[in-house]
Amino acid sequence: MVKKMDSLESMRKSIDNIDNAIIAMYAERFRITNKIGLYKAENNLPAKDEQRESTQFQRVTELAAAYGLDETIARQILEKVIDCVVQNHRQIAENFRSS
Amino acid sequence: MVKKMDSLESMRKSIDNIDNAIIAMYAERFRITNKIGLYKAENNLPAKDEQRESTQFQRVTELAAAYGLDETIARQILEKVIDCVVQNHRQIAENFRSS
Repeated sequence: MVKKMDSLESMRKSIDNIDNAIIAMYAERFRITNKIGLYKAENNLPAKDEQRESTQFQRVTELAAAYGLDETIARQILEKVIDCVVQNHRQIAENFRSS
Repeated sequence: MVKKMDSLESMRKSIDNIDNAIIAMYAERFRITNKIGLYKAENNLPAKDEQRESTQFQRVTELAAAYGLDETIARQILEKVIDCVVQNHRQIAENFRSS
């Protein structure tokens, strides 16, 4: 039974606070991956690096287990993030070639 | 031009450190949403709450703009997270009814 003091409103306030922190983290993460995208474009490296991705999925799966987060959820979120990163890297490479 | 000192390895290390923090945040976020799932099941509330989701997308869009994160990316990630949460809430409701 969820205690009355843990009202829906109070729990949602916690979610909102956590989302503030998560968005700040992603802002910094994409700032760095965009630099990586430029580095790749300058050095003619492919936007997608399957070996790196494999390492990342392994790390995140282990971290999820350590923190008590469902591993499938952690992997699904990372997959979405990597999709966005690769799309950005392709756009950066295109802009670099046409500049 | 990306400076040489910002090597690919160094930038990837930053990404890994940020991912540690993000996974820890999600672990806490899903711990709370699972409590919300139980609260909803106990109070016979639907797993999906479109009004709440609309408020969340609005908040996250504003936060992304404030932090300099691409708003479409922020919304895509939130969409994936909410999908996982709603799936969890449905499972929790099912377990609650059959207990």
